[in-house]
Amino acid sequence: MKRHIYLKMQPVAAARESFLRRFELDKLLPPEEIPTVAARGRITAAPVYARLSSPHYHSAAMDGYAVAAELTFGAAPDRPKRLALGREAIPVNTGQPLPPGTNAVIMVENVVPVGEEAIDIEAAVYPWQHVRKVGEDIVSQEMILPEKVEITPYAIAALLAAGVTRVLVRRRPRVYIIPTGAELVPVTALETEAVAPGQIIEFNSAMLAALVDQHGGLAEVGPIIPDDPEALRQAVPTALAQADVLLINAGSSAGTEDYTASILAELGEVLVHGVAMMPGKPTILAVVAGKPVVGIPGYPVSAAMAFDQFVVPLLAGLVGRQPPARPTVLAEPVQKLPSRAGLEEYIRVTLGKVGDRLIATPLPRGAGTITSLLRADGLLRIPSASEGVAAGELTPVELLISPE
Amino acid sequence: MKRHIYLKMQPVAAARESFLRRFELDKLLPPEEIPTVAARGRITAAPVYARLSSPHYHSAAMDGYAVAAELTFGAAPDRPKRLALGREAIPVNTGQPLPPGTNAVIMVENVVPVGEEAIDIEAAVYPWQHVRKVGEDIVSQEMILPEKVEITPYAIAALLAAGVTRVLVRRRPRVYIIPTGAELVPVTALETEAVAPGQIIEFNSAMLAALVDQHGGLAEVGPIIPDDPEALRQAVPTALAQADVLLINAGSSAGTEDYTASILAELGEVLVHGVAMMPGKPTILAVVAGKPVVGIPGYPVSAAMAFDQFVVPLLAGLVGRQPPARPTVLAEPVQKLPSRAGLEEYIRVTLGKVGDRLIATPLPRGAGTITSLLRADGLLRIPSASEGVAAGELTPVELLISPE
Repeated sequence: MKRHIYLKMQPVAAARESFLRRFELDKLLPPEEIPTVAARGRITAAPVYARLSSPHYHSAAMDGYAVAAELTFGAAPDRPKRLALGREAIPVNTGQPLPPGTNAVIMVENVVPVGEEAIDIEAAVYPWQHVRKVGEDIVSQEMILPEKVEITPYAIAALLAAGVTRVLVRRRPRVYIIPTGAELVPVTALETEAVAPGQIIEFNSAMLAALVDQHGGLAEVGPIIPDDPEALRQAVPTALAQADVLLINAGSSAGTEDYTASILAELGEVLVHGVAMMPGKPTILAVVAGKPVVGIPGYPVSAAMAFDQFVVPLLAGLVGRQPPARPTVLAEPVQKLPSRAGLEEYIRVTLGKVGDRLIATPLPRGAGTITSLLRADGLLRIPSASEGVAAGELTPVELLISPE
Repeated sequence: MKRHIYLKMQPVAAARESFLRRFELDKLLPPEEIPTVAARGRITAAPVYARLSSPHYHSAAMDGYAVAAELTFGAAPDRPKRLALGREAIPVNTGQPLPPGTNAVIMVENVVPVGEEAIDIEAAVYPWQHVRKVGEDIVSQEMILPEKVEITPYAIAALLAAGVTRVLVRRRPRVYIIPTGAELVPVTALETEAVAPGQIIEFNSAMLAALVDQHGGLAEVGPIIPDDPEALRQAVPTALAQADVLLINAGSSAGTEDYTASILAELGEVLVHGVAMMPGKPTILAVVAGKPVVGIPGYPVSAAMAFDQFVVPLLAGLVGRQPPARPTVLAEPVQKLPSRAGLEEYIRVTLGKVGDRLIATPLPRGAGTITSLLRADGLLRIPSASEGVAAGELTPVELLISPE
């Protein structure tokens, strides 16, 4: 049996840094112009400036009568001023433009009708009272949004109010996912066939695609490549011709089928092969054709942890966001949790309150146990330098659920 | 001028409760079955049970040799046991099924090859060592997800591992949005024409649609209906024939164009007309054909606040989620903020740290000032019973941005 050995297993942070630093993430993808109405959640690729002022005309802020404020000066309950309707006092509704020669609105509640032709007013108004002046909200040419901010529903409203109907945003990174392995059967096969012993349902790609989606990328899952180095050698450049990022799932352990690393080394450069983390050790970080390629381990929990550590910050950089930081709590492990020194370990735990104490109960640690991620409230991290934590020792747990 | 009066302006919480309680939100929409691979972010409409165990066969958890553990008992460095290759010790890779008659895997590192035909082992293995047993992760028929939980990427993996390729989820509520108002011009007009004084760019529907999307609904924006009661009277049943929720924007103030409430009263029942909040007072809450209808005020900040108070919890109920709760901080207003008693007021503020103190600076309070929402870090709420807060008085502020 010919076996590959992880020549230089790297610490997690160092591996991540050497990978991310290799790319100019802010500039790797060209921006795209899209309709403002469809821009929710996207990140601006350049500052956005107002094309129009808002309001773009002096407008009534109340229902009532537009007047020249000067005509009302001196009005009082005992000395009302009479204004000719249609000439000195022009009925307006909220939002309508002020007629020429007027500069204020008297609220309809504050006038006394005098037949059909006039109104009496019993208090003066000041210039621009109850008027929304041009540019009160937005002044033409002013910056509405800076570069690299998320476009929220409120921002969509402000952009459109400013006449900006199209906006330049970061492109969503296209992530191509190649599942590899002779033993894999596609999910679709389940609908027509029974799975035989030795056949593994290929569900990692669906999980990875959903994670890509969650982190702002556009995922495409390619067909399963059986254990065939030549097929993989051809699939990599084809995938990278259309995608910005490539994830190759499995074929990355140091077992007999491990040729992913050597093919990536042939086609580009392998920066990291083997990371000092568990689960997730057999991760590969590479560059091919100037683009990031990640060899994701085959066990589902390993795949999720590798995505978490390397693909999440990669996508954040490409999308133009800060990498999301999970809230962290301190909890007491219910039992001693030994861990191998030299590996950063992520133990899936459930959390429960006992009085004032927050207790962390470990879920099964096997990297194949997908339900351990499903059931986990958080990830308890044991640093590489540690040989584990004692029962009751306050330990940071990253929350996978929303804090209450 | 004929004018409608808010007969019974209701407090915010009472208005919301009488509206939401009117519907069986959990049952208003029929569930739908969708492919599991496309279910990220959806909410389960029923518990989901495993169709298959995972693993669905006893499989090797390591690369090595499958053996009957009993044959290895008594092995020691000075008394190795010799096993015949292919018969007593069968090479297996991780994930492969255990051959019949075997129940453990010896890691490849722990054997001493003896020619081509045998291996020596120097330590016993115990039954099921390095084996993933059937159902170790998931047992067929076990519940994978309960009802009314979000389907995460990890849940997608677990469902597919359990052979569940389709899943019953809450339907996304279809929300139809009707902009009304003779003065409105559609956003698309901006690309070809200049806007004239008196014309208002209709951007509220884009903001509302983005908010609907953000809160799990599917928005459709109808054409602008000018101030034409008959057109609105016809549009409401047509919209409700295809939608689950109807939002009618503007035409809901107590101005001359206010006929939305009377049309809704004709076609169904108006539960609330006028809410004791600012901005957002002219909100209408109604039921037509058993479906929720909200008359959203015309000013953009009023529209956003009405959406916040009434449509957000409505959609959460329909989708099957808890209404999102914004994190709240205590901040000191930089200046006195008077407010009218009897109205709950939402003042948009920016927040800044001065030493240890968190200072809230009010943004323009006009309901037409969309940039006040864009620039706000939070909403400072002045309760209805209060006439305002003093400068420096610690006051709760709901965060619109992520807390640091």
